[in-house]
Amino acid sequence: MTKNRLEAFSDGVLAIIITIMVLELKIPHGTDWASLQSVLPFFLSYVLSFIYLAIYWNNHHHMLHTVKHVTGSILWANMHLLFWLSLIPFGTGWMAENHFAPIPVALYGINLLMAAISYFILQRIILRIDGNDSLLAKAIGKDIKGKISPVLYLIAIICSFFNQWVAGAIYVFVALMWLVPDSRIERTIYDDNHSANLK
Amino acid sequence: MTKNRLEAFSDGVLAIIITIMVLELKIPHGTDWASLQSVLPFFLSYVLSFIYLAIYWNNHHHMLHTVKHVTGSILWANMHLLFWLSLIPFGTGWMAENHFAPIPVALYGINLLMAAISYFILQRIILRIDGNDSLLAKAIGKDIKGKISPVLYLIAIICSFFNQWVAGAIYVFVALMWLVPDSRIERTIYDDNHSANLK
Amino acid sequence: MTKNRLEAFSDGVLAIIITIMVLELKIPHGTDWASLQSVLPFFLSYVLSFIYLAIYWNNHHHMLHTVKHVTGSILWANMHLLFWLSLIPFGTGWMAENHFAPIPVALYGINLLMAAISYFILQRIILRIDGNDSLLAKAIGKDIKGKISPVLYLIAIICSFFNQWVAGAIYVFVALMWLVPDSRIERTIYDDNHSANLK
Amino acid sequence: MTKNRLEAFSDGVLAIIITIMVLELKIPHGTDWASLQSVLPFFLSYVLSFIYLAIYWNNHHHMLHTVKHVTGSILWANMHLLFWLSLIPFGTGWMAENHFAPIPVALYGINLLMAAISYFILQRIILRIDGNDSLLAKAIGKDIKGKISPVLYLIAIICSFFNQWVAGAIYVFVALMWLVPDSRIERTIYDDNHSANLK
Repeated sequence: MTKNRLEAFSDGVLAIIITIMVLELKIPHGTDWASLQSVLPFFLSYVLSFIYLAIYWNNHHHMLHTVKHVTGSILWANMHLLFWLSLIPFGTGWMAENHFAPIPVALYGINLLMAAISYFILQRIILRIDGNDSLLAKAIGKDIKGKISPVLYLIAIICSFFNQWVAGAIYVFVALMWLVPDSRIERTIYDDNHSANLK
Repeated sequence: MTKNRLEAFSDGVLAIIITIMVLELKIPHGTDWASLQSVLPFFLSYVLSFIYLAIYWNNHHHMLHTVKHVTGSILWANMHLLFWLSLIPFGTGWMAENHFAPIPVALYGINLLMAAISYFILQRIILRIDGNDSLLAKAIGKDIKGKISPVLYLIAIICSFFNQWVAGAIYVFVALMWLVPDSRIERTIYDDNHSANLK
Repeated sequence: MTKNRLEAFSDGVLAIIITIMVLELKIPHGTDWASLQSVLPFFLSYVLSFIYLAIYWNNHHHMLHTVKHVTGSILWANMHLLFWLSLIPFGTGWMAENHFAPIPVALYGINLLMAAISYFILQRIILRIDGNDSLLAKAIGKDIKGKISPVLYLIAIICSFFNQWVAGAIYVFVALMWLVPDSRIERTIYDDNHSANLK
Repeated sequence: MTKNRLEAFSDGVLAIIITIMVLELKIPHGTDWASLQSVLPFFLSYVLSFIYLAIYWNNHHHMLHTVKHVTGSILWANMHLLFWLSLIPFGTGWMAENHFAPIPVALYGINLLMAAISYFILQRIILRIDGNDSLLAKAIGKDIKGKISPVLYLIAIICSFFNQWVAGAIYVFVALMWLVPDSRIERTIYDDNHSANLK
């Protein structure tokens, strides 16, 4: 019951964040392709942020799937994650409106970094409660993606002051890295479920 | 459990898209019927997009009803569909603000086309996983509506550069085509449920 | 399952409508009580619309509680109701921004009237499917409130062209009429549930 | 069933309020750190309001967890609470846009006070229905936090006309007071659940 409501609330917040972002796509005044082109930086930023939020929803979904006991610290670590994710539409809009100027690109990276850290904290807390033999511990394994991502965000933030396109390329790369299906993890979780169901 | 959360998230996003669109209905400054009339293109576009989103919700609902195993590819194909649907308020607003100018009308059709393609991809993936003997396969049958719609959108997109009203009429026609209850499909799904419940 | 998703989607849309309305409460520029006073018409209209939407959620909740079979016609009648409710923030904003000018006040009434009619249609369809001996039929009884409300809206719409304050008073009166707990209905539904649970 | 839908609706409204607030974070026009600094008052107010809404969600969650019978009066007391919470984005925006001017700071406190009162009413009604031996009664105990908070809000409202920073400090203090985990309450509820499950 408790877990259901935590999931429902997180789903609600993520669904709203992902959809509210589209309000930054301001309707252009002209009616030709050129005026549509002025929306292009917004569109590209929107696609990137949409994918990031979708990845977070997806991973969050799998992680909470394994949780057995919802404690106060899980509730608050989850709120902390939602807080940083809720700022993504702002970061996306500032970056797009200024055609990927250095500081907005760096801020976008800081936002992604904070979200990654808060996700890591949430994961730590769940692991501490459910134990290292838990389903989640097995599923994550060495969590290489989770450890590389913050490092890459940090590199991108520094890069953005020299060449913001390199920073942008790193953001795209990290997104693609997560998009590639991590079949091993999914198998661990669902196999376990399956065998649990068979018992 | 997994399926419930996928449905809940999709419902959330669709509910927000359908409701956020109404924010494009800008409050007119005058207080007479004439100033209300200036909102008419927005109102008509809103009605059309509302119906399209309602149809998608309805069909999405029936399709997911038949899904047994939610895989990573279903999650991502679903996200892809939600992405294109999330752009409908933007397309609706641009079309309405410019009183159905050719390019905005064409873009609206492109948006509908992309949504139809992403829905088709999602359906394909579900069919591939659940098999051709599945409930969904039986329910869809030859899927004539699903195959005609993209063709009609394409024709409408081309039409919009010559006469945008013909394009608009095609959009209305496709919506009406889907609105007409497809009693055969509903029967297949619910009969099956019914007999399953009887067992 | 199907019913759950219909409820969840309706809840989502109603939650968004009720909350989006607050965005019409534009932040005043000054920092004194006078500038806060300029928000008063918005605040009063917001309170009224909030109560109306809360009543609709409440009644909708009780009505769907009794539904056993969700059919395509119920889905579409429900969408029709949500459509008219989704226009309430627009009507509220136009009425408030023009300090209750006649035509905006009339339009607000038309919106309420259409919502009432669409609610009535949804109720009819559910009754037709579940039968006149159904829980809903017993709970509604003669449905006096449901029959008086549209008549009062109509009177208010006509009034608004002569004296809009009379129209406003009627809107407030109808809201209060629904707010008064209808203990008989609640008892019918919950008693029945209770006795069902006891069996 | 009824309780689930009440929780789902409340979650939806709270998720939207918490996320809509971020729309007040207007995108700055410059691209330097200075222009980002202009967003600082909004950011700080956003953090504070986010924490308050998260606390409300958390407590609401625990409180409804104990409810057995959802009556009409609970539904309406809950709506009343959601109404005051829905005004928080407005209060937050007005306070931030005017760099914490006295009257906006006082209004923010009035809003918090009204939310606290409506929460208290909801709690009273639930206690009256479920009885003083109920789980909630045990969990709340003397409810010291719940009784001190309105008093502190009142002091802060008065303070804001002399020194608004003292008022702000009180708002932060109350939030921190609630943030500190109230392990005793959580234990009462979950222990009880646990022993209930063991039976």
